[in-house]
Amino acid sequence: MEFLVNIRIQWPADGDPEKYARIAEEERALAGKLAEAGHLIRMWRVPGRRENWGLWRAESPSELHEILSRLPVWPWMDITVHPLGWHPVDPAPEHSRPQVTLPH
Amino acid sequence: MEFLVNIRIQWPADGDPEKYARIAEEERALAGKLAEAGHLIRMWRVPGRRENWGLWRAESPSELHEILSRLPVWPWMDITVHPLGWHPVDPAPEHSRPQVTLPH
Amino acid sequence: MEFLVNIRIQWPADGDPEKYARIAEEERALAGKLAEAGHLIRMWRVPGRRENWGLWRAESPSELHEILSRLPVWPWMDITVHPLGWHPVDPAPEHSRPQVTLPH
Amino acid sequence: MEFLVNIRIQWPADGDPEKYARIAEEERALAGKLAEAGHLIRMWRVPGRRENWGLWRAESPSELHEILSRLPVWPWMDITVHPLGWHPVDPAPEHSRPQVTLPH
Amino acid sequence: MEFLVNIRIQWPADGDPEKYARIAEEERALAGKLAEAGHLIRMWRVPGRRENWGLWRAESPSELHEILSRLPVWPWMDITVHPLGWHPVDPAPEHSRPQVTLPH
Amino acid sequence: MEFLVNIRIQWPADGDPEKYARIAEEERALAGKLAEAGHLIRMWRVPGRRENWGLWRAESPSELHEILSRLPVWPWMDITVHPLGWHPVDPAPEHSRPQVTLPH
Amino acid sequence: MEFLVNIRIQWPADGDPEKYARIAEEERALAGKLAEAGHLIRMWRVPGRRENWGLWRAESPSELHEILSRLPVWPWMDITVHPLGWHPVDPAPEHSRPQVTLPH
Amino acid sequence: MEFLVNIRIQWPADGDPEKYARIAEEERALAGKLAEAGHLIRMWRVPGRRENWGLWRAESPSELHEILSRLPVWPWMDITVHPLGWHPVDPAPEHSRPQVTLPH
Amino acid sequence: MEFLVNIRIQWPADGDPEKYARIAEEERALAGKLAEAGHLIRMWRVPGRRENWGLWRAESPSELHEILSRLPVWPWMDITVHPLGWHPVDPAPEHSRPQVTLPH
Amino acid sequence: MEFLVNIRIQWPADGDPEKYARIAEEERALAGKLAEAGHLIRMWRVPGRRENWGLWRAESPSELHEILSRLPVWPWMDITVHPLGWHPVDPAPEHSRPQVTLPH
Repeated sequence: MEFLVNIRIQWPADGDPEKYARIAEEERALAGKLAEAGHLIRMWRVPGRRENWGLWRAESPSELHEILSRLPVWPWMDITVHPLGWHPVDPAPEHSRPQVTLPH
Repeated sequence: MEFLVNIRIQWPADGDPEKYARIAEEERALAGKLAEAGHLIRMWRVPGRRENWGLWRAESPSELHEILSRLPVWPWMDITVHPLGWHPVDPAPEHSRPQVTLPH
Repeated sequence: MEFLVNIRIQWPADGDPEKYARIAEEERALAGKLAEAGHLIRMWRVPGRRENWGLWRAESPSELHEILSRLPVWPWMDITVHPLGWHPVDPAPEHSRPQVTLPH
Repeated sequence: MEFLVNIRIQWPADGDPEKYARIAEEERALAGKLAEAGHLIRMWRVPGRRENWGLWRAESPSELHEILSRLPVWPWMDITVHPLGWHPVDPAPEHSRPQVTLPH
Repeated sequence: MEFLVNIRIQWPADGDPEKYARIAEEERALAGKLAEAGHLIRMWRVPGRRENWGLWRAESPSELHEILSRLPVWPWMDITVHPLGWHPVDPAPEHSRPQVTLPH
Repeated sequence: MEFLVNIRIQWPADGDPEKYARIAEEERALAGKLAEAGHLIRMWRVPGRRENWGLWRAESPSELHEILSRLPVWPWMDITVHPLGWHPVDPAPEHSRPQVTLPH
Repeated sequence: MEFLVNIRIQWPADGDPEKYARIAEEERALAGKLAEAGHLIRMWRVPGRRENWGLWRAESPSELHEILSRLPVWPWMDITVHPLGWHPVDPAPEHSRPQVTLPH
Repeated sequence: MEFLVNIRIQWPADGDPEKYARIAEEERALAGKLAEAGHLIRMWRVPGRRENWGLWRAESPSELHEILSRLPVWPWMDITVHPLGWHPVDPAPEHSRPQVTLPH
Repeated sequence: MEFLVNIRIQWPADGDPEKYARIAEEERALAGKLAEAGHLIRMWRVPGRRENWGLWRAESPSELHEILSRLPVWPWMDITVHPLGWHPVDPAPEHSRPQVTLPH
Repeated sequence: MEFLVNIRIQWPADGDPEKYARIAEEERALAGKLAEAGHLIRMWRVPGRRENWGLWRAESPSELHEILSRLPVWPWMDITVHPLGWHPVDPAPEHSRPQVTLPH
C-alpha cells in the first residue's frame, strides 16, 4: 500500500546544531535501511523549507505509523499522511483495480 | 482496515425533492447491503447538517473508493477519508500491533 | 450519547521522556477503566501523528468534559468534540429516531 | 441540554422575493411554537448578515437535528451546532455539575 | 447591549498549578460580581477544552473591553467578541426593533 | 458607536450591466443621505476588488443592521462588521473611556 | 495616502508588567507625535483583545513601514497593512479620482 | 510605486470559448499598452492554473484600481494586491529609503 | 524536473454523464501518450474524491503548464503544483545535488 | 528559471539585538553577492512586517534551495516558494513559450 507523506521538521532556530547534525546522520542511516526494506520509495525536498514529500509503502496505516514513529527526528516532525488509491491512468500501478462484490 | 469517513451532501436548495427522495431510498437500500457485507460499521448524523461521519471497513483505500463511488448520492458528495491506525488503548481493536523488521 | 473526539497531544519535542512514559502509563490504566465503564468505545491512531480519533459515550457534553479533563495527559491535549446524532442507515444505532411534538 | 447554533441563510441574490417572504413568514410562525415548546430560548442577528446565533434546548443532538431540519428555510441553511457544557461561573446553569464514578 | 463572547484560556501545560488555582478562584469571585452587576448573563464550557462561550451585557464594546480586561485570567485569554443584533424571532429580546430615519 | 465594516460585492460576472448601473446609482444616492445623517463616515475601495472598507456610526449593532440591510446592493453583499472600542491613543475619540463600577 | 492597519500585540502572558508599562508609556508619547505629524488619524481597540485597528497616513508603503517599525512595541507586533483606494461614495475623500491615460 | 498583484481568472468551465478568445485578445492588446505606459512590468503564469502573478507600477492604490478595473477580463477576476516597500537588499530599488521626521 | 501535482475535478453533479464519459476517454488516451513521453510518472486516486495526486516530469514549470492545460478535463480542473527539490535520502534521485558557486 | 519567494523572519521579540544586527549585516553582504551572481533579482519589504517578497533566479528548485538554505537568517525563516511560468503578456519574459511534442 502506498502513501504520500508530508513531513515538516520543527527544529527550533536556536537548537543545538551539533545535536541536529547527529540526529540527521542517524536519520539518513535509518532512511537507507527503510529504502532497502522497500518502505521508502522516493523523497523530495520542499524548496526553501525544512519539509519534504515522500512516497512510502507499508502493509497498512498502522505499519506506516510504526515506521514513522521510529525516525530519530520524530519528536520534531509534523506529519500528514495522504492515503493513495488505484487510478486508471497510473503508468506504474502497484496493483490492479480492486473488485467489490455485494450481497443481492 | 478501518476508515473514518466524513461525507457532506451538496444537494442544491432548489433541487427536485422527488428525485432526492428516490436517490435517498436507493442509498438506504445499498447501505443495508454494505452493512451486511461488513463495509459500513457505523454512521452518525452531524446535527443540523446534511453531513455524516461513518466508520467503514475495506481491504484498502482503493477498495473503499470503489465502494464510495457506487453510492447513488456520490455525485453530490464531498468526502474526506481519514485513515485509522492501531491504538494501544482501543477497547475493541480490529487487529494487533504490527511488527516491523528492518535490515541490519 | 455518543461523541466523536479528536485529541492532539502537544508534548514538547524536548520534554522529559521519562515523565511522558509515566503519564502515558497512567493514561492507559485510566483508559482501561473508562472502557470498562462504557465511556471509551473505540480509539484509533492518526497515522504519523501524536493524535487520535475516539468514539466516546457519556450522558451529556458536561459529563464528557468531566471525563476528558481527568485524563493524565489533559494539560497537553488539544481536543475537538463532534456531537453525533441518529442516522437512518446506521447499522448499530445507539437509540431510535427521536420524536418531536410541537404545540398547535 | 443547551446548544449554541449558528445559522447562515444562503438565499440566492436573484431569488424570488415573494417566495422568501412566504417562507420567512412560515419560519416565524414555527419559531413561535418552538419557543413555546422550550426549544428556542434566544436568537440574535449577526449584524450585516443573513446569519444568526441562537440558544436552543433539546434532549439530545438527535432531537435538535429533528427540530432544525423541519425549519422552512432548512434547505438554504448552513448550520453549525456547538455543544455546551456546565461551567462553574454560569449565573443561570441549566443543571448542576455531573458526577462521574469510575470502576476501581 | 448583548455580546456573544468566546474565550480560550492558553495556560501553559507546565504552568504552576497552584498559581492557576489561585487565579481561577479570583476569577470566580469576580464572575459572581459581574453576574450581580448584570454583565455576565450566561457561561458555558466548550466540552473537552479550556474554552467557554458567554453571553455578556455592556453599554458598548468599549465598556465590554474594560470588563474583560479586568479578569484575572486576562493575560492568558484569547477572546473573540461577536456583536449581536435584534432578531424578529427572539423569544426574549433585550429591546425592540430600532427605527431608522433618513433625510429626504 | 463606530464600526469598521468590510463589504464584498458578489455581482455575477455575467450579470446585467444596466441593472448593476441602476442599482449602483441608487446606492450612491442613499450613501449620500447616510453620510448626511452621520451614519457613513468614510469609505475606501480595496484596490483591485469589488470590495470596500467603511467607517460607520450607529446607536447599536441592531441599528447598523437596519441601515446596511436597506442598501440596494444588499442581496449581493457579503458583510463583516468589526465592533470598535475606545483606544487611549486615538487622536479623535468618539467618546471618553467608559467607567465600570462593580458591587463590593 | 491612507492605510487601514491592524496590529496584534503578542506580549507573553508571563512578561514583565513593569517593562510593558514602560514601553506602553513610550508608545503613547510617540503616538501623540505621530498624530501631530498627521500620520496617525484614528485608532480603535478590538474589544476583548490586545489588538487595534488604525487609520494611518504616509507618502508610501515604504514610509509607513519606517513609521511602524519605530514603534516601541514593534518587536511584539503582528501587523497587517491594508492599502486603501478612492471610493465614489466616501464622504471625506483624501483626494479626487485619479485619471489614467494610456497610449493609443 | 510598485505592487505585487495576484489575479485568478474565474471563467466558467462551460463558458463560451469564442467569447473567451475574443476577451483574451483584447486583454493582450491592452496589456501591451499598459507595458508601454510603464504600468505592467512583469507577468508570470501560476503553472497549472488560470492565475498569474504580476509586478505593476502606479502612482497610488487608487490609480492601480483604475487600471485593473479596465481590464476586459475584470468581471471574472479575483484580485489580491500586495503593497510593496523599499528593502535594503533590493538590487534594483525603485527609490531610496524614505526619511521620516517627527515633531519634538 | 519533477513536480507533485494535485488535481481536483469540479464536474457539476448534474453534468451530462455521456459528455463526461467521452472526455474521460480522451483523457486516458492522452495520459497514455504523456506516460510514454516521460511526463506522467505516477498517478493516484484520493480515495472518496474526484481528485488525484500525480508525479510529473517536465523541463520547467512553463512546460508543465503547457502539458496540463492541454488535458481534455482542464476547464474543470483545480490544480496545485508543488515544486520538488533534491533530497539527501531519496532512494531514486532524478539528479545529483546541485553545486552553487558565489563570487568572492 | 524565476521564482517568487515569500520570506517571513521569525526572530523572537526578546532575541539579542546585537546578534540580530550581526546576522543582518552578514545577510546583506551575501545578498549583494547573490545579486551579482544573478540569483537575487528584486526584493521588497512587506510593509509593517519582518517579511519580504523576492524575485529569484536559479537553474532549478534544487539550486534555489541550496541558495536559500545558506542565508544567515535561514534558521529563523519561514519560506514559501512560488514557481513561475511563461505568460503571453509578460513585457520582459525570461524565455519564449516552450514547445511540447507528444507521441502519435
